[in-house]
Amino acid sequence: MSIDHLSATASASPGSSPGGAAGAPLADFVSRHVGPDSADTEHMLAVIGQPSLDAMCDRAIPGAIRSESPLRVGAAASETAVIDELRALASRNTVLTSLIGLGYYGTVTPPVVRRNVLENPAWYTAYTPYQPEISQGRLEALLNFQTVVTDLTGLDVAGSSLLDEATAAAEAMSLMHRVGKAPADAVVLLDTRLFPQTIAVMRTRAEAIGLPLVVADLRGVTDEASLAAAADGKHVVGVMVQYPDASGEIVDWAPLASAAHAAGALVTACADLLALTLVTEPGAWGADIAVGSAQRFGVPMGFGGPHAGYMAVHRGLERQLPGRLVGVSVDAEGHQAYRLALQTREQHIRREKATSNICTAQVLLAVMASMYAVWHGPAGLAGIARRVAGLTADLRATLVAAGLDVETTAFFDTLTVVVPGRADAVTTGFADRGINLHRVDDDRISLSLDETSTATTVLAILDAFGVSSPDDKETIGASDATGIPAGLERSSDFLTHPVFHSHHSETAMLRYLRRLSDRDFALDRGMIPLGSCTMKLNATTEMEAITWPEFAGLHPFAPADQTEGIRDLIDQLAAWLCEITGYDAVSLQPNAGSQGEFAGLLAIHAYHQARGEGHRRICLIPASAHGTNAASAVMAGLKVVVVKTAPGGTVDMDDLRAKVETHRDDLAAIMVTYPSTHGVYEDTITELCELVHEAGGQVYVDGANLNALVGLAQPGTFGADVSHLNLHKTFCIPHGGGGPGVGPVAVRAHLAPHLPNHPLAPEAGPETGVGPISAAPYGSAGILPISWAYVRLMGGDGLRHATQMAVLGANYIAARLRDHFPVLYSGQDGLVAHECILDVRQITAETGVTVDDIAKRLIDYGFHAPTMSFPVAGTLMVEPTESENRHELDRFCDAMIAISGEIEAIRRGEVAVADSMLRHAPHTALNVAGPWEHPYDRVDAAFPVGVDAADKYWPPVSRIDGAYGDRHLVCSCPPPEAFES
Amino acid sequence: MSIDHLSATASASPGSSPGGAAGAPLADFVSRHVGPDSADTEHMLAVIGQPSLDAMCDRAIPGAIRSESPLRVGAAASETAVIDELRALASRNTVLTSLIGLGYYGTVTPPVVRRNVLENPAWYTAYTPYQPEISQGRLEALLNFQTVVTDLTGLDVAGSSLLDEATAAAEAMSLMHRVGKAPADAVVLLDTRLFPQTIAVMRTRAEAIGLPLVVADLRGVTDEASLAAAADGKHVVGVMVQYPDASGEIVDWAPLASAAHAAGALVTACADLLALTLVTEPGAWGADIAVGSAQRFGVPMGFGGPHAGYMAVHRGLERQLPGRLVGVSVDAEGHQAYRLALQTREQHIRREKATSNICTAQVLLAVMASMYAVWHGPAGLAGIARRVAGLTADLRATLVAAGLDVETTAFFDTLTVVVPGRADAVTTGFADRGINLHRVDDDRISLSLDETSTATTVLAILDAFGVSSPDDKETIGASDATGIPAGLERSSDFLTHPVFHSHHSETAMLRYLRRLSDRDFALDRGMIPLGSCTMKLNATTEMEAITWPEFAGLHPFAPADQTEGIRDLIDQLAAWLCEITGYDAVSLQPNAGSQGEFAGLLAIHAYHQARGEGHRRICLIPASAHGTNAASAVMAGLKVVVVKTAPGGTVDMDDLRAKVETHRDDLAAIMVTYPSTHGVYEDTITELCELVHEAGGQVYVDGANLNALVGLAQPGTFGADVSHLNLHKTFCIPHGGGGPGVGPVAVRAHLAPHLPNHPLAPEAGPETGVGPISAAPYGSAGILPISWAYVRLMGGDGLRHATQMAVLGANYIAARLRDHFPVLYSGQDGLVAHECILDVRQITAETGVTVDDIAKRLIDYGFHAPTMSFPVAGTLMVEPTESENRHELDRFCDAMIAISGEIEAIRRGEVAVADSMLRHAPHTALNVAGPWEHPYDRVDAAFPVGVDAADKYWPPVSRIDGAYGDRHLVCSCPPPEAFES
Repeated sequence: MSIDHLSATASASPGSSPGGAAGAPLADFVSRHVGPDSADTEHMLAVIGQPSLDAMCDRAIPGAIRSESPLRVGAAASETAVIDELRALASRNTVLTSLIGLGYYGTVTPPVVRRNVLENPAWYTAYTPYQPEISQGRLEALLNFQTVVTDLTGLDVAGSSLLDEATAAAEAMSLMHRVGKAPADAVVLLDTRLFPQTIAVMRTRAEAIGLPLVVADLRGVTDEASLAAAADGKHVVGVMVQYPDASGEIVDWAPLASAAHAAGALVTACADLLALTLVTEPGAWGADIAVGSAQRFGVPMGFGGPHAGYMAVHRGLERQLPGRLVGVSVDAEGHQAYRLALQTREQHIRREKATSNICTAQVLLAVMASMYAVWHGPAGLAGIARRVAGLTADLRATLVAAGLDVETTAFFDTLTVVVPGRADAVTTGFADRGINLHRVDDDRISLSLDETSTATTVLAILDAFGVSSPDDKETIGASDATGIPAGLERSSDFLTHPVFHSHHSETAMLRYLRRLSDRDFALDRGMIPLGSCTMKLNATTEMEAITWPEFAGLHPFAPADQTEGIRDLIDQLAAWLCEITGYDAVSLQPNAGSQGEFAGLLAIHAYHQARGEGHRRICLIPASAHGTNAASAVMAGLKVVVVKTAPGGTVDMDDLRAKVETHRDDLAAIMVTYPSTHGVYEDTITELCELVHEAGGQVYVDGANLNALVGLAQPGTFGADVSHLNLHKTFCIPHGGGGPGVGPVAVRAHLAPHLPNHPLAPEAGPETGVGPISAAPYGSAGILPISWAYVRLMGGDGLRHATQMAVLGANYIAARLRDHFPVLYSGQDGLVAHECILDVRQITAETGVTVDDIAKRLIDYGFHAPTMSFPVAGTLMVEPTESENRHELDRFCDAMIAISGEIEAIRRGEVAVADSMLRHAPHTALNVAGPWEHPYDRVDAAFPVGVDAADKYWPPVSRIDGAYGDRHLVCSCPPPEAFES
Repeated sequence: MSIDHLSATASASPGSSPGGAAGAPLADFVSRHVGPDSADTEHMLAVIGQPSLDAMCDRAIPGAIRSESPLRVGAAASETAVIDELRALASRNTVLTSLIGLGYYGTVTPPVVRRNVLENPAWYTAYTPYQPEISQGRLEALLNFQTVVTDLTGLDVAGSSLLDEATAAAEAMSLMHRVGKAPADAVVLLDTRLFPQTIAVMRTRAEAIGLPLVVADLRGVTDEASLAAAADGKHVVGVMVQYPDASGEIVDWAPLASAAHAAGALVTACADLLALTLVTEPGAWGADIAVGSAQRFGVPMGFGGPHAGYMAVHRGLERQLPGRLVGVSVDAEGHQAYRLALQTREQHIRREKATSNICTAQVLLAVMASMYAVWHGPAGLAGIARRVAGLTADLRATLVAAGLDVETTAFFDTLTVVVPGRADAVTTGFADRGINLHRVDDDRISLSLDETSTATTVLAILDAFGVSSPDDKETIGASDATGIPAGLERSSDFLTHPVFHSHHSETAMLRYLRRLSDRDFALDRGMIPLGSCTMKLNATTEMEAITWPEFAGLHPFAPADQTEGIRDLIDQLAAWLCEITGYDAVSLQPNAGSQGEFAGLLAIHAYHQARGEGHRRICLIPASAHGTNAASAVMAGLKVVVVKTAPGGTVDMDDLRAKVETHRDDLAAIMVTYPSTHGVYEDTITELCELVHEAGGQVYVDGANLNALVGLAQPGTFGADVSHLNLHKTFCIPHGGGGPGVGPVAVRAHLAPHLPNHPLAPEAGPETGVGPISAAPYGSAGILPISWAYVRLMGGDGLRHATQMAVLGANYIAARLRDHFPVLYSGQDGLVAHECILDVRQITAETGVTVDDIAKRLIDYGFHAPTMSFPVAGTLMVEPTESENRHELDRFCDAMIAISGEIEAIRRGEVAVADSMLRHAPHTALNVAGPWEHPYDRVDAAFPVGVDAADKYWPPVSRIDGAYGDRHLVCSCPPPEAFES
């Protein structure tokens, strides 16, 4: 009846279309995504002395790599049309009641949390909290998350989230192996009833580094002898179990833990956080490490992610924790303040010495999960768990009474039912009734209840089994019975901190969320000019679909016939990414850039191996590379050899030639970033590719800087074999305050057979693939509609225009600031790519003013600092992106020029650096109101040029002493009195 | 396939159910809506010396009015279940492409505006900007709105929104009549082609006050003679025309305007804002007043509302403007600042002398419409209009070429087509193709294109008419042709202010919206303890459905078979409101409390008239009543007689008896508020009702304080005949920063035949009704899902609990503050109802500290002030509502006690009031950083007790000088340089 579809075919609204400098009209959304309008563009071009965007790009980008053909990703569609298309895709998914379990469960996102976190730009457009003074809100939320994890697992220290349960388990596997300092052939012993995807991901990881895994039934292991038997006599360095296990059974693992400890092995529990509100915490029965997922704490399944994985360890292992760790420290006035702790152990500092390549966390999802715990409090969480457990107990009792064979005897929410030879038929029968089960094998199915289950769910299950329901339906779930064995009932308190008892009304929660977000500086307040991080617009229309039930409600292992819409979306996005990059195949499984790197390097190794050249293990990496590159290479079993940087910032081609020659026979790959991390389009890239190829190596181009290439050049055609992309950089997935990220890996055809695949979803990768590298077949599929929408809204011309404008923005800043801060590297005509490096080293040498001082002083001016000391120590790397308009670019340049003036005053000796506004920055409101002994004025400190007093952003704390916190490590919520001072 | 419906039957989650003091478990949502948990409740009861909630209510509320039976509104449902039920209702609406027009058009809400205004609690939970220092954000947005209206209409001064186009027209009608100072039988002359609902609403209004209207075809009126002829020779005081008119015709009204002016009459244009971007502005052809709707500026149709009506006038009439007017003034430092202007002309001050009863505006919708203009800018708006006009022109040309008879010749977006005898058939044929038309009469249909129309829409229309489409479909809408007559093309600029040129990228717009909202204090930051305004939680789940297309996309005049879901929702809500109030019938048409009053009084008058007692025109109103009561009575043609207040704050029963006796024969009604505006349950209410009834009068109970009665007492059973309710107070519709409001009128059976009805929707009211009082049949139907969800989530027990907790909260505050500020009125045991009045008069007399000083000082403490000087000058009325938890109540009490300490210091002579923190409050950040000559400390000024420095709310301006602004009236965006000082 409706002609709603009309809008789907609406042409892009003409409206005001500022247009490119060339005057060609742009689609309406393009003019919304790109900051500068045509007048701004003309002005900016004039400032950099270039006649047009095309001319600028002709000068900046080597002709050899330019692609001239337009991107074939379709014309731009209007926002209304894109929403209609997404609705059409959504309607081709079928959301059944999922009882599949295996780490993914139905959950209710508290509406106040959904609207005010997941749908609130103040949370989702924030960056990773590297500048802690302007990140106190999400750091507190993450500290709450860490407290949830430590309290529930009964361990001492937890990180602020990992990518998913399976990769967290893989990190635990590596950790146990590393700490164990055991013989090379020492094994990690895995219980057979770990989630199957967890085992598979660990196999992928273990194979790459030659770590032997043994999978065995560990239920009967109670002493060293049976442990040794399970390990075929090998030295056991670590043991891992699921708790409750995949079959649903709650096993008393204490005897196993004792045996493992006696054998010198560590024990990891993959534990369900909701179950832990009722069952004995792993720390209490001897686990050294716990990992798992916080998905069922209010985060939709989203066809596999993103969700927050977690890891907790007992004290002594905290320096081994992969990923980010939030800790408590003090600011310049001695007030408590939060910041990332123990950063020196991280991959970007330790490079090939790193113990993990994990960079991105899942901050937005960890925040949601922590707020779910804040919202429900311990009693509420236990209440939810008891209801789930009670329904499961009633279900089991009724099934058993009806003669069904339920294998699971001690349980929380999951039952395995024996249906000899009928598993397929039963699964189909349930699906016909709107319920998805897990088919374990030909003779078994399992089902997991969850927070959304009700008595009606139980009745539907009974009906599907052909079991008559009890006479009094009211009794279902009414008793206190559960399947938790008496000896394993939890007896300890958890979440006793006041934060879990203070925000249980919606009004209180709303204010808590607002208060925290107000402490933070995100894209909704101003520019975040982070070099290499591409903090561009995350448009509302792009974000719209991710909370729709048809995308958010899908279980990652749902049958393929229920997920046609999302899989079509994924296929289309993959095809567009191929077109944009010039590659032949893309896997969207990697749920972070680091995982994309790992997958890409695995593909390279598998390729060599398939050609009988598995000995090729040398990976060349330029000195300027992001530390993750080296860490990923090591994880992929490669050996890193560093290539020097030439004085101009380019790869030292002579050194490269020498290294290639030296390692010719063993050369696996080179990993380079293009344009380079120095923000320049190096014109040696094609020669570099040829050199490496000629020696039999593969070329890996890190896609971090793809925002400088889209529509202008394709790595897949200018010589590279593989790249990972960062959808959270170039393709508009918001940074979420430090995750989620998505890091698809794109390859040329010869590597395609070696992309990731998945044991539970054959359609998700090539049969010959390297195995899964993430828990879910398509990784963080739930947020792929964001990037899909971005490409659809921009169209090929719009994407190319965005790239040109990103380059223009960076060059405009370079031009305006060059006289005040030397621009470290540039190419032809002094042009940079999409970012520029401001050199502060000479300033520091002459005045004592450091990049830190400038970064913190920028907070007073209402800015997030640029990237500090990467890739060159003592510099600031600025990337404005195409989304910042001239007003904001000028505001930034004006601030930097004013800061330069403040530096000059120090140079002239008018003020000592130790007494300067720069050194005492950032200034809090309390500073400004309090006793004042500075030689400068309060107003100059707090309201420098360009700051509108009415709209001032005040940092909640002054400069934070990170080292203090590392010396006094506190990584869970400090008692409230700690804040009284 | 799905068993999604399972969740619909989910029992309320057990979770953490703090429960009432009695310990009975409450539904999960109730414990989320109500602030204090059971421990807090016990504590609060102990402080007020009451053993239980029930005991407290037994003491506070007269037994004679207590209703003991539980409310039969169903048991509470979980949030998930309520959303499922709403989805089921939504699915029973059918959203066709609406070409009905008549003031309601398809429009695209910019996604960034929807998410960051309409779905953002920082905007929608704000109160009316009576405290301008903490309302600068929305005041700026409203000033933008006023600028949009004045620029587009070509008039000088516009108000900050009215309720809808029809009531705005009715206000213009009254204004013209009032200003004209003409003989009593002078007529207002209306063109026949005004929108039909506009004429109908004016008839209702005019009849009530005996204002003669003449409806005539004014197209031919070009001189005084033809004007006189059209008016049947009567003196014409005002003329009103639609522009473009309802048939779509753009008439040159200049000759009419000249004739009217020559005859001493004023001219009102009901004008379409989008059309005004292309056609000559009414101010340029002689209109004195323009009214209309800003709906099509990005506000969904929502089955009729809410939208912002507008009115603009030429200079000289500004003091006659009904409703709110934002103006520019200065703060204590002389900085530009915004505040409501000319407030002395408003109904709450002028009472029965008021010229309008309009109180609420449509702030949230006016903000959206203004942001639509900010987003598109003048070029963008004109571009949209040109596209609509172009498509309409192409459509007309094709229809005419095919031989159809299109009556409209000069047009913007609307065409009237003659289809002799076939209007019904054509309308049905279009509906079958998914298009709604307007059936004008048996022989005519009209259709209006809009922003969402495309070439495809035109093709669908052609197809439905059986007209073959042009060979080259690409040409549709491609030419520049429009139907705008050459002489009426707009030649003047509009929206030249920079704000309409600065925020065209989504990033810039996002930041502008954030910046404005950050200036304001709303419920998401802290308590707004406004007596009589009931600022309770507006829960996310309640807000959820209003943006769903199935509710938001309905045209108010859509055929009934397309609106079953929303009408069922309305019927159910009406039934629940009857059950809650004890009345027999409810009309949801009034879109503000004032309109509910008007409708209720009209019903009373119609009832008397029907009984042959139309002479009963005396309306008794207690001295303490809200000024709107008196203004509404006058509008309904009644004569106000004031009843005195007794010393205890109750109605003076002796005076009442005397007044009833005096006016016995002419007594129409008494209007009282219950509990009284003094915040006490008067035990004389039943006697009062009997007295009035015995004299033949009707009892109107103002429902403003219904939050103190729900579940405890029913006005409809304790003696009242009619009440209006405020869904934006008791039933959780957010205040939106000063609207939308919804003011349903509830009546006993004998008044039910006299409720409002609607000419275009017979199902919307009784055939014998008083006519429409709002433009849309169900008023602001688009937001009724909010109140529906509230009742559904709370259930009968939850609603009653909420009332008890609201009373407890007020009494807790009274108990804690009584020693510091006398509580002016109270009943048994010193108990108040749901609010309490703190008497500051003695303090003012002794120390010079005023309620203003306290109100502004509360801003420094992070609070919105209570209601000031109502109902008693020199007092503060505090209403905390049930949603504030003990922590927030204590924070408020602690602040007030600390302020009391500051007052004591003045009393002791330690500081002069003129030098005190109280007098200089609120303190801005710039104050605190700047030169300091106060005798008190900066920290004490800005960070008094209870203020966490990290989370401080800073007012953007200091105390505003309202009188200055009234002397120098500026009511549109001042030039940017005005802010440089």
